[in-house]
Amino acid sequence: MRADLLSRVLSLLPEPAGRPELRHYAEMLRDYPQRGGKGIRSELLLASARAHGVAPDTAAWEGALWLAAALELFQNWVLIHDDIEDDSEERRGRPALHRLHGLPLALNAGDALHAYMWAAVHRAGVPGAMDAFLAMIHRTAEGQHLDLSWVEHGEWALQPADYLEMVRLKTAYYTVVVPLQLGARAAGTQPHPDFEPAGLALGAAFQIRDDVLNLTGDAVKYGKEIAGDLLEGKRTLIVLHWLTQAPEAQRQTFLDQMRRPRSEKDPAVTAQLHQWLLDSGSVAHAQALADAEAARGLALLERAFAPLPTPERAAAHELLGAMRALATRDA
Amino acid sequence: MRADLLSRVLSLLPEPAGRPELRHYAEMLRDYPQRGGKGIRSELLLASARAHGVAPDTAAWEGALWLAAALELFQNWVLIHDDIEDDSEERRGRPALHRLHGLPLALNAGDALHAYMWAAVHRAGVPGAMDAFLAMIHRTAEGQHLDLSWVEHGEWALQPADYLEMVRLKTAYYTVVVPLQLGARAAGTQPHPDFEPAGLALGAAFQIRDDVLNLTGDAVKYGKEIAGDLLEGKRTLIVLHWLTQAPEAQRQTFLDQMRRPRSEKDPAVTAQLHQWLLDSGSVAHAQALADAEAARGLALLERAFAPLPTPERAAAHELLGAMRALATRDA
Repeated sequence: MRADLLSRVLSLLPEPAGRPELRHYAEMLRDYPQRGGKGIRSELLLASARAHGVAPDTAAWEGALWLAAALELFQNWVLIHDDIEDDSEERRGRPALHRLHGLPLALNAGDALHAYMWAAVHRAGVPGAMDAFLAMIHRTAEGQHLDLSWVEHGEWALQPADYLEMVRLKTAYYTVVVPLQLGARAAGTQPHPDFEPAGLALGAAFQIRDDVLNLTGDAVKYGKEIAGDLLEGKRTLIVLHWLTQAPEAQRQTFLDQMRRPRSEKDPAVTAQLHQWLLDSGSVAHAQALADAEAARGLALLERAFAPLPTPERAAAHELLGAMRALATRDA
Repeated sequence: MRADLLSRVLSLLPEPAGRPELRHYAEMLRDYPQRGGKGIRSELLLASARAHGVAPDTAAWEGALWLAAALELFQNWVLIHDDIEDDSEERRGRPALHRLHGLPLALNAGDALHAYMWAAVHRAGVPGAMDAFLAMIHRTAEGQHLDLSWVEHGEWALQPADYLEMVRLKTAYYTVVVPLQLGARAAGTQPHPDFEPAGLALGAAFQIRDDVLNLTGDAVKYGKEIAGDLLEGKRTLIVLHWLTQAPEAQRQTFLDQMRRPRSEKDPAVTAQLHQWLLDSGSVAHAQALADAEAARGLALLERAFAPLPTPERAAAHELLGAMRALATRDA
């Protein structure tokens, strides 16, 4: 995220001070935000605010900036808890927080950041923002529950529709739908009703692209372990599509590996599964679906922004360009 | 908690509906609240509201009830995460949530309840309540960090003052200070400045009594495993006091057991440690300190409530009685 937004996030968090344990606490809260996330969601929120006529150096812009900071705090507490839930090894090129400090302290740090997120929402003073954040967290937690319960119960008898329902809840609301809506709220405007279907389509495109990058990406640019989803047993569109058409022996090898806990997965077999997935048509199939979802979402957004006056239209044009890039990004 | 408050809490949570996984999610969110907590904090908040002149069936009373529901939701999400952090076996006489459903789903359910807590705060519409909840969570998370980091780093070189700092942050704010303040806020009144020192003393008394009950209590009434604190390696005033005067051989046995993870602790040795603690004067010492803290807190509160008109004074009298019972309760 950009430097001025990072400063705003950090200004809300406690300074390292007092007894050593509490200095350590403050440093833990500052760790993930300082690792340099891309700030995709906060940029989208600010672009949406501009497209709704919010001008820099106004009270409304200040409100939008606090909401953008809140969205970054949301992303960071969710990542800390996600990394625990998935027992991920790395986050943004460094060990996950619970691998540095143990699970209990990391879980607690995530809870604390969650509360600081609400401090940022409160500070924004934007009518309707609190309801938007509540709805966002509710949907994200429901999607997270779907995803985690499939892992917990070893469920692989899933259709692409199940995957799409999960990613809409888990990713699309907080990545696209709510940032678009919050930009409108910051301008004192009722969000366009098409932001929801548009954001759901674009959010699904974003997550599918993420799943593709997890298998095909450049580890340095991507910032997470390549094929980490395979080690964590993630249900992705790629895997679900591949399972419907893979040779029976490959299918059995896959399901056998997925039954094992991460520590007992054989790295050679994981590498083999990774190669089978890359060699199949399933990556291209998933990317094609991401492209189609992105196109559908963009068409809805273009229509929603069409009646804008000229200055806002330029901002909307920029926003649409950023949205277009999400489904084809490299990192 | 009382039936009408439980209904209010449950009315905020999603109904079990939709696909099986999401029904399961809704049931997980409803589990801890339905296990029947004592509702100590919500009762205190409501007593404080009455003592500040809030009458039943008014808009202010409705606000107080939503704040009371929020406080119960706070308690429940914190307990879910606490039980994970301490790897507790039981909560209110049943297996802890993560032992029923696995850690990832339980962690996520705690996050969801945290968000529903904010929905209740929002619904209350009481000016100042959001700041009070923010301060409460910040202090509680700091105290939790102190406690957990001592466990994480095997720290036993601690003084009673360290323990008192920890419990004031971890327990006293959310158990006494903030409920008292929220009762005033519900009445549209600025909280009395002495609520903070009074609540810190009474909250410490409450937690020390809890530590005493953990060693001496009746398992059925108490609802947690007796001597669970020993298995979890909790730093309590009793243990810290005992360590300063225990025979060296007993000290070494204790520290050796505490270095082991819970699963490798010897039940016979734990039973022996439990007996040593009971036979020492440290339980009585801790209870005496709890009594002194309670008396100090009560004196401050009595003075704060003294200028009240007659009807409110009856409510304040009731509140003081409930506070007095906290430091000597049996469960």
